[in-house]
Amino acid sequence: MEIAKCPYFEEGVDIISQRWVALIVYNLLDGAKRFNQLEESIGISASVLSERLKFLEKKSILKRVVYPETPVRIEYELTDMGVALGPVFDSLMTWSDEYIK
Amino acid sequence: MEIAKCPYFEEGVDIISQRWVALIVYNLLDGAKRFNQLEESIGISASVLSERLKFLEKKSILKRVVYPETPVRIEYELTDMGVALGPVFDSLMTWSDEYIK
Repeated sequence: MEIAKCPYFEEGVDIISQRWVALIVYNLLDGAKRFNQLEESIGISASVLSERLKFLEKKSILKRVVYPETPVRIEYELTDMGVALGPVFDSLMTWSDEYIK
Repeated sequence: MEIAKCPYFEEGVDIISQRWVALIVYNLLDGAKRFNQLEESIGISASVLSERLKFLEKKSILKRVVYPETPVRIEYELTDMGVALGPVFDSLMTWSDEYIK
C-alpha cells in the first residue's frame, strides 16, 4: 500500500507520538496491570497517567477491566489493537537506536 | 531491548511524527528527486517543503546533492538512515490501516 492511499496513517502517527503512550503499551505487553503498578514502573504522576489511560481506552488500545471482588480490582489490559502496536514500536526503536547517535 | 533503555526513542518519534516527513521519505524511496518533482507529487507549498527538506537534511535522513552542470542540478536523496525508515513507516501504516477504522 502507498502511504498516500492510507487515510489512517496520520491518525496512527498522532496516537503513537503522544508522550508516555509507548511506555504504557510496553508495560502492558506482558500482561494486565493495576493503576498503581503502572504508576510505579513508569514513574509519572497519577494525573498524567490517568489522562493517558482514558485516551488509550477511547482509542480502543486498552480496556479497563473491573473485577467485582472486595475490594474491587481494576486492571488495564491491551486489546488486540494494542498488542499489535508492539512490533510497530519495536521497529521504531531499532531504527532510533541504530541511527540517532 | 526495552523501550525504557533506548534513550533515542523519543527523538525518533519526534522526527517521524512531523507532518509531511513520511510522505517525503516515501517519495524518495524509489530514487533521488528534484525539488519541483517533490513539490508536485506531494502537493505542498514550496515554503513548507523547503523547511521540511532542511529539517530532514539536518537530521541526516536525506542529503542535498548538487551536480555542477549547466544549469546546475540539485537532487534530494535518502541516506541509509532515511532508507531504513521505509520499514518503520510500513509497520505503522499496516497497523493504522488494520485497526483505525
